[in-house]
Amino acid sequence: MQCFHLQSSEDSFRFSSPTKKDCKVSCYSSRDNEFIYRNQNGTVILRNVETNNSTVLIENKKIVSLKAVRYEVSPDREYALFAFDVEPMYRHSYAAHYVLSKIPHGDPQNLYPPEVSNAKLQYAGWGPKGQQLIFIFENNIYYCAHVGKQAIRVVSSGKEGVIFNGLSDWLYEEEILKTHIAHWWSPDGTRLAYATINASRVPTMEIPVYTGSLYPTVKTYHYPKAGMENPTISLHVIGLNGPTHDLEMIPPDDQRLRDYYITMVKWATSTKVAVNWLNRAQNFSILTLCDATTGVCTKKHEDESEGWLHRQNEEPIFSKDGRKFFFVRAHPQGGRGKFYHVAMSSSQPNSSSDNLESITSGDWDVTKILAYDEKRHKIYFLSTEDLPRRRHLYSASTNGNFNRQCLSCDLIENCTYFSASFSHNLEYFLLTCEGPRVPMVTVHSMTDAQKIFELEVNENVQLAVNDRQMPKVEYMEIKIDDYKLPMQILKPATFSDMAHYPLLLVVDGTPGNQIVTERFEVTWETVMVSLHNAIVLKFDGRGSGFQGTKLLHEVKRRLGLLEEKDQLEAVRTMLKEHYIDKMRVGVFGKDYGGYLSTYMLPAGEENQVFACGAALSPLTDFKLYASAFSERYLGLYGIDNRVYEITRLEHRVSLLKEQTFLIIHATADEKIHFQHTADLITHLIKAKANYSLQIYPDESHYFSNPALEQHLYNSIVNFFASCFQVQDKLPIAPLKEEEDND
Amino acid sequence: MQCFHLQSSEDSFRFSSPTKKDCKVSCYSSRDNEFIYRNQNGTVILRNVETNNSTVLIENKKIVSLKAVRYEVSPDREYALFAFDVEPMYRHSYAAHYVLSKIPHGDPQNLYPPEVSNAKLQYAGWGPKGQQLIFIFENNIYYCAHVGKQAIRVVSSGKEGVIFNGLSDWLYEEEILKTHIAHWWSPDGTRLAYATINASRVPTMEIPVYTGSLYPTVKTYHYPKAGMENPTISLHVIGLNGPTHDLEMIPPDDQRLRDYYITMVKWATSTKVAVNWLNRAQNFSILTLCDATTGVCTKKHEDESEGWLHRQNEEPIFSKDGRKFFFVRAHPQGGRGKFYHVAMSSSQPNSSSDNLESITSGDWDVTKILAYDEKRHKIYFLSTEDLPRRRHLYSASTNGNFNRQCLSCDLIENCTYFSASFSHNLEYFLLTCEGPRVPMVTVHSMTDAQKIFELEVNENVQLAVNDRQMPKVEYMEIKIDDYKLPMQILKPATFSDMAHYPLLLVVDGTPGNQIVTERFEVTWETVMVSLHNAIVLKFDGRGSGFQGTKLLHEVKRRLGLLEEKDQLEAVRTMLKEHYIDKMRVGVFGKDYGGYLSTYMLPAGEENQVFACGAALSPLTDFKLYASAFSERYLGLYGIDNRVYEITRLEHRVSLLKEQTFLIIHATADEKIHFQHTADLITHLIKAKANYSLQIYPDESHYFSNPALEQHLYNSIVNFFASCFQVQDKLPIAPLKEEEDND
Repeated sequence: MQCFHLQSSEDSFRFSSPTKKDCKVSCYSSRDNEFIYRNQNGTVILRNVETNNSTVLIENKKIVSLKAVRYEVSPDREYALFAFDVEPMYRHSYAAHYVLSKIPHGDPQNLYPPEVSNAKLQYAGWGPKGQQLIFIFENNIYYCAHVGKQAIRVVSSGKEGVIFNGLSDWLYEEEILKTHIAHWWSPDGTRLAYATINASRVPTMEIPVYTGSLYPTVKTYHYPKAGMENPTISLHVIGLNGPTHDLEMIPPDDQRLRDYYITMVKWATSTKVAVNWLNRAQNFSILTLCDATTGVCTKKHEDESEGWLHRQNEEPIFSKDGRKFFFVRAHPQGGRGKFYHVAMSSSQPNSSSDNLESITSGDWDVTKILAYDEKRHKIYFLSTEDLPRRRHLYSASTNGNFNRQCLSCDLIENCTYFSASFSHNLEYFLLTCEGPRVPMVTVHSMTDAQKIFELEVNENVQLAVNDRQMPKVEYMEIKIDDYKLPMQILKPATFSDMAHYPLLLVVDGTPGNQIVTERFEVTWETVMVSLHNAIVLKFDGRGSGFQGTKLLHEVKRRLGLLEEKDQLEAVRTMLKEHYIDKMRVGVFGKDYGGYLSTYMLPAGEENQVFACGAALSPLTDFKLYASAFSERYLGLYGIDNRVYEITRLEHRVSLLKEQTFLIIHATADEKIHFQHTADLITHLIKAKANYSLQIYPDESHYFSNPALEQHLYNSIVNFFASCFQVQDKLPIAPLKEEEDND
Repeated sequence: MQCFHLQSSEDSFRFSSPTKKDCKVSCYSSRDNEFIYRNQNGTVILRNVETNNSTVLIENKKIVSLKAVRYEVSPDREYALFAFDVEPMYRHSYAAHYVLSKIPHGDPQNLYPPEVSNAKLQYAGWGPKGQQLIFIFENNIYYCAHVGKQAIRVVSSGKEGVIFNGLSDWLYEEEILKTHIAHWWSPDGTRLAYATINASRVPTMEIPVYTGSLYPTVKTYHYPKAGMENPTISLHVIGLNGPTHDLEMIPPDDQRLRDYYITMVKWATSTKVAVNWLNRAQNFSILTLCDATTGVCTKKHEDESEGWLHRQNEEPIFSKDGRKFFFVRAHPQGGRGKFYHVAMSSSQPNSSSDNLESITSGDWDVTKILAYDEKRHKIYFLSTEDLPRRRHLYSASTNGNFNRQCLSCDLIENCTYFSASFSHNLEYFLLTCEGPRVPMVTVHSMTDAQKIFELEVNENVQLAVNDRQMPKVEYMEIKIDDYKLPMQILKPATFSDMAHYPLLLVVDGTPGNQIVTERFEVTWETVMVSLHNAIVLKFDGRGSGFQGTKLLHEVKRRLGLLEEKDQLEAVRTMLKEHYIDKMRVGVFGKDYGGYLSTYMLPAGEENQVFACGAALSPLTDFKLYASAFSERYLGLYGIDNRVYEITRLEHRVSLLKEQTFLIIHATADEKIHFQHTADLITHLIKAKANYSLQIYPDESHYFSNPALEQHLYNSIVNFFASCFQVQDKLPIAPLKEEEDND
């Protein structure tokens, strides 16, 4: 579940965006009417929403004394598992020390593999039943049937950094599964499915580590750049009751899947596991249902795309018997191309082929299927039916008319962007309002619409917001081709159209992403608006997500080209407004957005559009980035290298003139290597461009040091503040006088 | 010999300093009255200074068509050796392809080892007689008796990057021998002495190379940081006539030389070779004369210092029989400490100990011994007797009264800084005037003072200088303790003491170096003065060279401390002048000077002295730099680490306030690793300092790319110009009016 806490200090208010990382609320719902969460005091509480009784499970001082940063309660609620000394690895993964402690007041017991003491583990977590747990050490999986019982090693083929069992390698963690967890418990806890990822043939990347020793050291790991050998993956199931027979799920025998990714694994029943197989080109996939007792996988659905297959790691929702399931697929909606909708697949008793029906339709996307209520014949999901920038919770009937009903519309004032999760037996659901108001979490009864419990209202954040001049948010639509595309404008609270404001364009633009949403956020951009009187502009052009696949696939094989056009269109629309100072326009982006911000910085030939631009850890050459990402949009490197060549940023920076340009890159960036920036700088030097560089020595892509992150955002704010200030003096002075006269 | 050519383009005039790199004149004097040099058209000419006849040896078009960047004529003048495709390695070393060509019109013949074709060589060069030559490939030495004869491998123990024969490893090249050449021909060409340097136990440094390949690569080489294992060195002699017997010269059997450097090798006669052995602590040395036929080395002189031994790689000058020799040693001059003077050592026929006499004395330094004229009983040398910032050529009688005579004083108008070289039989000498006037080279007869030939007058440079407003150079002395220390002030040609000028302090400060000299130079500093109206200040404080060892050794074990005090004293002296704008003072330094400029940037607590500072490839932590350098001044790392700790720049940058600070560092700097800057930046970030960084990806310490070097100096000029401009506006405006009124 999602939840929001902000610290009350002004600084963090300025810069922290409410992310799951800060999350202090944790929920659990093995019994339908009970929730476990951590309250504002840090106490972990079991709350019965029927009786409204609360029980303390873990006192805050226990968590503090253990210096634990993560905890998890066992399904039988007898024990808690704590992680401390957490050492971040990649985006999600980390190593940590773990202890077990009896609830409520037991002494901590270390959790180590039998053969090693004082070892950090790569993973530890409870299974679905009783006190069963597994942990992973040196890429091998250990199982413990209950606390006190000796852990046994159930998977042993692991090799550190090379053969991963139950965990992702860098590529799967960042680009495919998007989590470091690559194992899946069967719902009854008798079996464990796990992936084995073999990166031994993937070339190694070496990252220098400058500080901390007399001679710099090198961090080495397998990283497939575009066109290079990929890691191979296989899926296995082991039984945990009795001998741990290891069975590999047999991949579909299809020529088109010679080199494949496994993008999704989900248990349908306690013996059947659904697996999605995607070819390397990422335009063909097969969804199978595999028999965990034989390893035989049966094709349930096949998908193909002329662009690329998007959203390949979303889990289908199964009926209890596994014979019926719901999943999201891109489905044609007349002339507007395909949109993502709920499909229902049902096995026919006497037929080998399944029956496939679309439950929803329209020129909007279903963004997530949440639950299937077999009793009430209803499917629950989130969609953009209201507007692409919104998310509402809907139900649709799964038989007959497919009647659709919005459950969150007009439910909470000033709330249009929701996420939700359902309790096991669908008696309750947690609804998280993510914006535009300050986020809040409520518990709702399925049977009694009046029964609503507030679990978290983020009072402190609300108070902080009340005290501050938050930006005014406005929306516009721009017509490009046949599309009506959404634009978001953040204006200072004190906005007056008699004044002149600088304009800051913030771009993301990763294909399939969306930057214009109604989520609540407080970031450095908010500071630019409220403290530095900038107007911030965001725009979702061609290539952006949640508006069907036609818009999405426009950018295929020409990354940058249309995004630049569309973003400039948005900027030019704003420049028509007399309150925008044409001399003070800036652009910012990070990662792929850094590619775009650099790409478009020289825009405008004689009348240059941007006075300044900044790029944080920019992608500058797609052949240097991860295979799975670059190949998805540009095809396999080595086959047609032309598109790789023309998308290199070096061609753009030679067009730079008077623009000032800030590049920021951490030298130990494990995702977008510092190499990207090094390469760009050689061309900036050649072009005699006016740039400045900021590096964070030995820091990684996802800054693990909050002080450095603060420094980073301060630097960006200062850069734009100074860019917007220099040109300030001439044009703004006379207008200010007018203001004074009013 | 030294010589000066500047290209006439304005840009290069701005930035190129006349260095030997640009040198087009080359001299050779195996026959006393002949010189070989390359004239301004590029033609290599043999000129007889008796007859004034000139013969063309190599036409420029030949050099151009071969793309040769280096050439050498054989002693018998039959062949020329050309190097092309030169690939710089460290400061001096390079690999290149070589061809031989008969003079004047032969076809080029490749020079390769017998076993490999198309190989780049690490060295190739003629011996002293006929057409004998050696070359070095994969650290093995090959000998060729004459052109056309098959080369034979005479030394085979080489191992690339690990065991060096006849060449220096990184440490010897940069810090000990100060050349990549570590072999020495006996004067008759029958023997070759060569060093074997074994770096196998030296830890390796890994430098990332970002560009040019899909995955960054790593450049690895042995580099001893402070306190780490050093390379070992041995000296060998092989005979080249007949079987090449290899004999090692036996190091002195002295406890104090357990870990030693060989700092100097020089043939005294055709069978005796002088060798200087220096202990690792660099405070004790033994000069020996080794018998090349037995390997036995006899001690000729021993030296010790309470500070450190300086100038250890200068060659003694021997009498023809090798029984008498002249060398420079620090000798006490009353209360003023020791100064460097010529000592004469003579073997006593019937005594085992040698007789040692001082030929010169006084509170000034002999900077170089040039020649010994046995017939006329005269020794020739350069010294600072006139002033520390000058160099004049002197002779002194070696018998009796030691009468001294200045040969260059008042010889050429506006020339006070000379260098010189003598022909083999001392019939002629070349005199290079290095300043203050535009440099020129003349040939002088020893017997007829009226006989002077102008070899190079640098007309183009003179014309360029005439066209431009060159800075006015002034000198002052500052009293610190008992020292009178020299200061140099460069003022704009248009200087008026009614105006306000920014002040730029340029520091070097490497112990033993001198920044205040009367050499002619045109650098980016000249641009700061002439284009940006800055006043440039240079000062030689405690620790500087050519003013005796007492001043030099003051900084031992406390690098930075006194240099800062002295440089600030110089700045404060200038700040008393009303024409200096106290708000616009900057400081620049590179390498050790970058250490100092960063060290002193925060100076001044409340009233900060500097508005801005820049450091190019700064040393930030001496334990990260070369053993031989850091240990010389701070002692062995690992014994007393306190001095290493207190000299770390991180302690200084936490004092930074409003100063702006530019750091520039090439990422593939092989001398002062980028690690220094990476480490400094982590502390600048912590201190929230106002700094900017410029990197040159994959560039090395001694920029081999002239375009990048230009970019580098442009950046420094722009940085200071902008620093000096911002504060410009307020104070300078009213003063300018006064000027106008005049």
